[in-house]
Amino acid sequence: MNEKRDRKAARAVVLLSGGMDSAVVLAMAIRRGFEAHALTFRYGQRHLVEVEAARNVAAALGASRHVVIDLDLARFGGSALTANGEIPRAAAGADRPEIPATYVPARNAVFLAVAASFAEALAARDVFIGVSAVDYSGYPDCRPEFIRAFESALNLGTRAGATGFPLRLNAPLLEMSKADTVRAGLALGVDFGLTRSCYDPEGGGTPCGRCDACRLRALGFDGAGVADPLARQKT
Amino acid sequence: MNEKRDRKAARAVVLLSGGMDSAVVLAMAIRRGFEAHALTFRYGQRHLVEVEAARNVAAALGASRHVVIDLDLARFGGSALTANGEIPRAAAGADRPEIPATYVPARNAVFLAVAASFAEALAARDVFIGVSAVDYSGYPDCRPEFIRAFESALNLGTRAGATGFPLRLNAPLLEMSKADTVRAGLALGVDFGLTRSCYDPEGGGTPCGRCDACRLRALGFDGAGVADPLARQKT
Repeated sequence: MNEKRDRKAARAVVLLSGGMDSAVVLAMAIRRGFEAHALTFRYGQRHLVEVEAARNVAAALGASRHVVIDLDLARFGGSALTANGEIPRAAAGADRPEIPATYVPARNAVFLAVAASFAEALAARDVFIGVSAVDYSGYPDCRPEFIRAFESALNLGTRAGATGFPLRLNAPLLEMSKADTVRAGLALGVDFGLTRSCYDPEGGGTPCGRCDACRLRALGFDGAGVADPLARQKT
Repeated sequence: MNEKRDRKAARAVVLLSGGMDSAVVLAMAIRRGFEAHALTFRYGQRHLVEVEAARNVAAALGASRHVVIDLDLARFGGSALTANGEIPRAAAGADRPEIPATYVPARNAVFLAVAASFAEALAARDVFIGVSAVDYSGYPDCRPEFIRAFESALNLGTRAGATGFPLRLNAPLLEMSKADTVRAGLALGVDFGLTRSCYDPEGGGTPCGRCDACRLRALGFDGAGVADPLARQKT
């Protein structure tokens, strides 16, 4: 039975948001030979078009399975991404120290904990998440020290860790610029036209060009010297 | 505005399962003066009677609010508590090294991460959880080292931690025996007749007397030298 399992591809859980970063991470996991189980949350975000984008990305890249989980963090309030407030228009970047209003309390902790539960149930050792230092822009749960500490904590609190098969939290974009992410995605055949980044729920996925997510996306495509297929669709 | 907040009771999020331990913890948090926001999960457990018990406990003890969140961990499989398998009948205790089939993958990590999200949204600094070393009985996510590591990780990945107001994970039962928990609960006026412990979904909350949870509960009441009101109801 172990022999049979060894011959099959190892499984991995890939957090997939519908944005460009997690699409590249899913492509990376599949390229590395994993049987990829994509996991998307409907967590009360105002930009639900992301969930549909995640479906399209998972299908296009060949994920083995795509699970969409409902978890209504919006009931707690506390973020412009889940409440009915104004989406802030502001410059993004690691040089801006304050935490933006679009921060969803403990979101990546929640996503990683649920992904760990999924991974254990699958007997998978690897979880992938698309956080990056550039994408940090004030979100504390995108910092490398958070990812490492969370991995250690999970391995103290899971069967996997307690029995000598620790979970690995893979964050392959952690040290990559947005332009590097665009280049890597293009090399892996990611269709960025299927991804959605804009925080503004009014646009139905068409980039507003003004929110943090749109600005980071534009920086990535500009830096890589290629056109964003979404921007092309718009003009 | 800060003065006004200071004069009000500090808020706390209390994980409330419907079992006896978390009922005692809720009573402790309220006794310590917290405005208690109770949080219960419908996570696909087979013993849904717990959720109704949690409602009754929250109301009886005077929680400010009781939030029930849906999070379908049963979709991942991997536990006798959420799947359609046989509930194991086995002796419980810290002397049994293996992890029981009733372990739900990464459950406390998931619960604590969601509780942290709730706490941040409430501007609460305290989260309470009813894990205990006795209750450990093989569950890795009830170990003190897990709770401490998870607290540290959360504070690296939350606005609260990043801005100098770290979250505190309170586990007041960690070093208490089940008998101590029963005594503490009785001293705080907890009506254990409202709580439910049994893992068996067939009983509708009536203790089966054979599963781990029933055996631990009986040890607690026997040790405290008092009768379990649920056992009285049965006879």
